[in-house]
Amino acid sequence: MSSIFFGTRIRTGGRSISTAANRFRLPPTIRQILSSPEVDEKIAVTAWVKSIRKQKKVAFGVLSDGSSPVGLQAVFREELGERVKLITNGTSVCVRGSMVKSPGAGQDKELLVEEIEILGACDPETYPIQKKTHTPEYLRDYSHLRPRTDAIAAMVRLRGTLMRELNRYFENQGFAYAHTPVLTSGDAEGGGEAFRIAPVPPPIKREFFGNRAYLTVSHQLHLEALSHSLGRVYTLSPCFRAERGVTRRHLAEFWMLEAEWNVLPTEDPRAQTTALCDFVEGLVKTSVGDSGIIHSEDVGLLWRHRDSDSAPEPTREKRREALVRAVTTDTPWPKMSYTDAVRELLNSNEKWTFPVRWGSALQTEHEKWLSETLIGGPLFVTDYPAKIKPFYMRANPPADGEDEGTVGCFDLLVPHAGELVGGSVREERLDLLRDSMKTKGMDVDEERYGWYGDLRRFGGAPHVGFGMGFERLMGWVGGIENVRECIPMPRWAGRMVL
Amino acid sequence: MSSIFFGTRIRTGGRSISTAANRFRLPPTIRQILSSPEVDEKIAVTAWVKSIRKQKKVAFGVLSDGSSPVGLQAVFREELGERVKLITNGTSVCVRGSMVKSPGAGQDKELLVEEIEILGACDPETYPIQKKTHTPEYLRDYSHLRPRTDAIAAMVRLRGTLMRELNRYFENQGFAYAHTPVLTSGDAEGGGEAFRIAPVPPPIKREFFGNRAYLTVSHQLHLEALSHSLGRVYTLSPCFRAERGVTRRHLAEFWMLEAEWNVLPTEDPRAQTTALCDFVEGLVKTSVGDSGIIHSEDVGLLWRHRDSDSAPEPTREKRREALVRAVTTDTPWPKMSYTDAVRELLNSNEKWTFPVRWGSALQTEHEKWLSETLIGGPLFVTDYPAKIKPFYMRANPPADGEDEGTVGCFDLLVPHAGELVGGSVREERLDLLRDSMKTKGMDVDEERYGWYGDLRRFGGAPHVGFGMGFERLMGWVGGIENVRECIPMPRWAGRMVL
Repeated sequence: MSSIFFGTRIRTGGRSISTAANRFRLPPTIRQILSSPEVDEKIAVTAWVKSIRKQKKVAFGVLSDGSSPVGLQAVFREELGERVKLITNGTSVCVRGSMVKSPGAGQDKELLVEEIEILGACDPETYPIQKKTHTPEYLRDYSHLRPRTDAIAAMVRLRGTLMRELNRYFENQGFAYAHTPVLTSGDAEGGGEAFRIAPVPPPIKREFFGNRAYLTVSHQLHLEALSHSLGRVYTLSPCFRAERGVTRRHLAEFWMLEAEWNVLPTEDPRAQTTALCDFVEGLVKTSVGDSGIIHSEDVGLLWRHRDSDSAPEPTREKRREALVRAVTTDTPWPKMSYTDAVRELLNSNEKWTFPVRWGSALQTEHEKWLSETLIGGPLFVTDYPAKIKPFYMRANPPADGEDEGTVGCFDLLVPHAGELVGGSVREERLDLLRDSMKTKGMDVDEERYGWYGDLRRFGGAPHVGFGMGFERLMGWVGGIENVRECIPMPRWAGRMVL
Repeated sequence: MSSIFFGTRIRTGGRSISTAANRFRLPPTIRQILSSPEVDEKIAVTAWVKSIRKQKKVAFGVLSDGSSPVGLQAVFREELGERVKLITNGTSVCVRGSMVKSPGAGQDKELLVEEIEILGACDPETYPIQKKTHTPEYLRDYSHLRPRTDAIAAMVRLRGTLMRELNRYFENQGFAYAHTPVLTSGDAEGGGEAFRIAPVPPPIKREFFGNRAYLTVSHQLHLEALSHSLGRVYTLSPCFRAERGVTRRHLAEFWMLEAEWNVLPTEDPRAQTTALCDFVEGLVKTSVGDSGIIHSEDVGLLWRHRDSDSAPEPTREKRREALVRAVTTDTPWPKMSYTDAVRELLNSNEKWTFPVRWGSALQTEHEKWLSETLIGGPLFVTDYPAKIKPFYMRANPPADGEDEGTVGCFDLLVPHAGELVGGSVREERLDLLRDSMKTKGMDVDEERYGWYGDLRRFGGAPHVGFGMGFERLMGWVGGIENVRECIPMPRWAGRMVL
């Protein structure tokens, strides 16, 4: 029976799906009704009225049940009586009737309503979501109602479909999904950005767990513990950072896709970084491009929506075309070492606000120029100086042009979304890990990090990993400018609604 | 292109999967190698030595890369030299060679090792995970290494495969996965069980979000906000409760599968509860039974493992048989009203520690008797008294035998795991919700709960929902006695490792 778990879908197609259908089935959603080839079907749906146009003897409504950005066109005839007059935008109704071929333009099928029941009225005078476009700022104050807008609903659906395709890629590559903890005993290298759990309130006033508890800022270290047994693991989980900066790219609660896995040893250690980049490129192209998501109606709606984006329409259209090209091309995305990137930046004619110097971090202006101007698409920058990267990255052997030690790592830079993914080969050699931790004031032989050392002490193996900001991916794929419109209920410094 | 999102797998089988394969492919895992029909395949894997038996001219090892509970049998011949002598349990190695038909019993294929590289030694003197069985208590102190044991590894894999099948069921039923927040502004009806985020440390010392922030105890209310736009939503997310009680069934951080969706109105409101139970039964039977998980090697390993279960082997075997029957049968699970359940309890000959009385909550002893003794399988108990249930449950019309008002709800009781799922029809009528909240000291017209009232004020619709404890499901399916062995890194009052 083990075959069930690997590649069922390849071998047996929809077997488990059809069994599920026999067990219990909810009535079809509007998406399912519209994609069904049948006509003259009798249907019943609970839905909201998105718009209604009343004529003398007939009214035309567009209904949404949230399953699709495309509404169901419903025809209400005179015989239905007074009730139709009560319908306003936002009203919740149950309609029953027949699906028929639509004589009008814009849709293949429409619903000829035979019965209507008004389930929940919606007073147009007080309803906070009017038909006119509201600003994103206004809508954020109505976290509980803003999913009624087309763009937020499309965003929520897109999160779900993207997640599904990401899951599929990992499943096919032999990964196990792992539920790493949100509560951790580490404060992420003391950066001060971790939220802390308050002690149990008086009269007891003590730490609930005995030791201090924090909200995780990254699942990586815990995933490494699991990859040292399960081999290939990943998670898509919430992370938390108490960052005081309020920008369009930062949230206090955000989701990260993180993966860690063992690899085969290679002669040239830099080949590990190359393969890691190829894996990530495969992940993005497969789940966004090959899956069809990039051409989906939800993504189309989001790109048309614009929101707070001030770029002119032709610019936006060009950005979208570049995105489609990037995720559907068979041509590999370029890779460039940090050293070469610094050389390109120095040779450019740009005036930089932040100086370019080997050994300094790349600033947003540098990253933007590299991916947007120099390459015009996604770019892997690899092999950064060790001193500007975390302790767990694997030391590279020396190479030409590198003033000091570098580590086997990459950042994936994409136009407009910036750094989408960061990853590295992990230092599996205990002695080198010890040295690297020492330079950051950490001790691999002490209790606090001893467990991390144990992973190398007892059967360690070469391994790699990366993290991708899920909201960054959403922003890039959907052309969404502000990360607060990339998550259903955003939280940031000074603001939490609901 | 919208068809991409509904039923791609039904219509096009492995299309996106094979494209993924063309893009980038990690080398096959041991699971993939063992399930491949090919022989005389050249392979290379990075794996741990689970056991090694050294004979004079040859050694036999069992290797695991974590992908499968079944190890790869590897044959090391004399020609490989001294290196083989260095191999101990837990050593990490890279082996290359050919898969050949196995002459031995126990496996179809084995690896004839041609090259071996020792990647990470494992000192048998100090390695905390010895071959002998350790107690669960001992292993919990080694959170980072205990996934190296067969049972914990099987548990982690089972979580992932269960999650996948649950996702599949919801996808086929037209649901969107929704990422509801972990940080919330509500403290869950003031029960005092919500963890609170500490204020930002001095010198500033203030709430990071302006208002107090808690860790969510349930995603239900936030999901309801989303179901009032998306129609059908669900999540599998972490929840947190600062429960001081230390039992084998409680964790401070646990995962809940929660769903909320709109339904068609019905003449008989009690029919909504029946349909809700049917949906949940379909979910469990489809994802655990039809998927084949119940017959998987991981589940088999977990049932054989026993761990802290003191029940004699024949009792355990009977329990497992009852579980297999329950999730594979076409016969619907019985449903019984709370009123009937109380009658059965009163008519039994048992001596109850807690008195049985209409209007009191059912205690564990009552629930156990109902599912284990009276029914001998899963049982839905429905329509509990309103006064012992939360404010959001929908008031039933009066019925015979009910002393006071009841609500449209259910608990799914399963043998040994206890309450696996709880759900209800939600009160969509604003006036009745107002009354119900008033009895619990809450005001639907005030700011704090006003948003929840808004969902009814503006186009409310009949809707239902439920929550399932994911670790409870794990415990039931895997025959795992203690919830701390149902999650990779458990946290409970007084204890957090890593």
